[in-house]
Amino acid sequence: MKQICYLDNSATTRPLNEVITRVSETMGNFFGNSSSRHAIGLESAKILRNARENISNFLCIQEGDLYFTSGGTESNNIAIYSISNLKRGRIITTAIEHISVLKSIKKLKEKGFEIVILSPNENGMISCENLIDNLSLDTVLVSIMMVNNEIGAINPVKKFSKLIQKKSPNAIFHIDAVQAFGKIDINVSEIGVDLLSFSAHKIHGPKGIGGLYASKKSKIKPIIFGGNQENGIRPGTEAIPLVAGFEEAVLRCNINQTYKEIEKINIYCCSELNKIKEIIINSPSDALPFIINFSIFGIKSEIMLNFLSERGIFISSASACSGRYKSHVLDAMKLNENQIESAIRVSFSKFNSKNDIDNLIQNIKACLISLK
Amino acid sequence: MKQICYLDNSATTRPLNEVITRVSETMGNFFGNSSSRHAIGLESAKILRNARENISNFLCIQEGDLYFTSGGTESNNIAIYSISNLKRGRIITTAIEHISVLKSIKKLKEKGFEIVILSPNENGMISCENLIDNLSLDTVLVSIMMVNNEIGAINPVKKFSKLIQKKSPNAIFHIDAVQAFGKIDINVSEIGVDLLSFSAHKIHGPKGIGGLYASKKSKIKPIIFGGNQENGIRPGTEAIPLVAGFEEAVLRCNINQTYKEIEKINIYCCSELNKIKEIIINSPSDALPFIINFSIFGIKSEIMLNFLSERGIFISSASACSGRYKSHVLDAMKLNENQIESAIRVSFSKFNSKNDIDNLIQNIKACLISLK
Repeated sequence: MKQICYLDNSATTRPLNEVITRVSETMGNFFGNSSSRHAIGLESAKILRNARENISNFLCIQEGDLYFTSGGTESNNIAIYSISNLKRGRIITTAIEHISVLKSIKKLKEKGFEIVILSPNENGMISCENLIDNLSLDTVLVSIMMVNNEIGAINPVKKFSKLIQKKSPNAIFHIDAVQAFGKIDINVSEIGVDLLSFSAHKIHGPKGIGGLYASKKSKIKPIIFGGNQENGIRPGTEAIPLVAGFEEAVLRCNINQTYKEIEKINIYCCSELNKIKEIIINSPSDALPFIINFSIFGIKSEIMLNFLSERGIFISSASACSGRYKSHVLDAMKLNENQIESAIRVSFSKFNSKNDIDNLIQNIKACLISLK
Repeated sequence: MKQICYLDNSATTRPLNEVITRVSETMGNFFGNSSSRHAIGLESAKILRNARENISNFLCIQEGDLYFTSGGTESNNIAIYSISNLKRGRIITTAIEHISVLKSIKKLKEKGFEIVILSPNENGMISCENLIDNLSLDTVLVSIMMVNNEIGAINPVKKFSKLIQKKSPNAIFHIDAVQAFGKIDINVSEIGVDLLSFSAHKIHGPKGIGGLYASKKSKIKPIIFGGNQENGIRPGTEAIPLVAGFEEAVLRCNINQTYKEIEKINIYCCSELNKIKEIIINSPSDALPFIINFSIFGIKSEIMLNFLSERGIFISSASACSGRYKSHVLDAMKLNENQIESAIRVSFSKFNSKNDIDNLIQNIKACLISLK
């Protein structure tokens, strides 16, 4: 593969070679339908079982509480939809959630739930005080992301869980952990969460597969109906090669080592960005080091994105999912219009190095000069 | 790969080597998020566009009317759910549909629709007379499969379409074409259908990807909510490698040639089965040649399935999705209990040959002798 400077790892990551091999070998050698009862089917069912076991161990959950889905968006939807048959009450979420959470919750508003949307503080985080003030006895669902996809702000979900248990003991707590999964340690039972969504393609796994942890308390329900796959929660022939590739990516997550490496790259990148007077960093200083969001005054995001793309450097102007619209996250953080219009997100993976940062900085400077 | 006699191709097929290579190369070389606006994202978007174009051509539909989904079950669910916001009225379906259709429609019953379930005739087909008798002016949806997955019976969907247009001009016509797609020619505009579901893994494509044709008239709506992927009808990061693999499988469908080859195998298999006095063929004589359903009196399906599986021959006792339950299709055809309990489905692909049939027949005979 040609040398590229890919700094858009929060949009998606390059699959590991080992993942590609695993998917490809599974396609060729274990093609059976895991619901078939002959030996070829049983072999596929075994791959499914092993993957479920390994990914469950990774999250410290029981195997029976893990459901494979087609990705993070579907996981979020199933998680939130599960509430729809409960007694009507308050749903608490935040203004910085992924669009799949915000839109799913909007649908529940139509069904008579009261929706409370918490605003982030100036660091893009949800404060405990803000949550406490809104938790009520009739709160049925709290849905807050662990790591924000645009700025990397980390929410104190363990503290949130304790507050919810105390003030809203009947509420279900859902965490969208798509950007946190495989990057920071997630011990589901320690956190105390009922529903947790995650995805494979953000951690060098295949696209088209994700997962949902659902506690017994969450009384999860399907969105689509059909066979008994995934205990009837997610029917449809299981994509065994993707499941195997997902397992491979998870088994190769070396969270501590990768975190340390990325932290060094992050510190170097921030220090270089801070040297450029036109730049202001929007991510909080204690954000997940995998993501840096910054604004380059005077240059609209799209201009910079295209300038860099032409030079083999790939960054994002906002989350990939939100398309051409203004970032709702930066807006909720009350950044000014100029700051929002010129915002850039770089996001790292273990494939990045200091060289990529040098390349990025050099070309940002070149763009600034060329436009003067 | 070791030599196997795989006769369960209606459950799933072995991916073509070309499909495996395509998926694997796409994973490695085109890993971008197709919603990203840099060059890596645009390359992925181009693959998506090309695949949509080729698969649309294959079905004679407009590209804008094709939606990629995670598979047949999801396609059926989206298709049927689209009706839920329409004026309440009659929904007509059949007793021999796939469980994903039957269960989705059952959910609509809860929303106040009137459900009419047509019974098949003794050949497992839905007759035009039966449909005519039930079509009404307030019929909002007719959902009938093109080829039945357990017995291979082919329904005259083109005739159905004309009848629907005449007697229920406001009704949406949905066809579950999962077992027909890539095996018989489907010209969507000639048939006159509003919604048509299909899947990749039944035609040597990857698991985890399917498609839905939806006409403008169908006013399709999403089941899950999130980004603008697939025009907002199916949000979530597109699984580009699966899309590419699906395209590859479609481009390599040589419908006419494969049909002729399978027809020969079918005729040979039926003639050999008819020589065994304990056997009665349940599939109609004009069924899709890819599927033969038959009963072996005195031997329960599970016994035969296991006996054959131990000898490297892989067949099905019912559809893979329906699990351990009695076949609802054979039941609807009013076969007697003995016939249902001893029913076997063999289903072919272009990887099968006359040798596989000889192997099957020889071992069925061995099983009959061993149990005497």
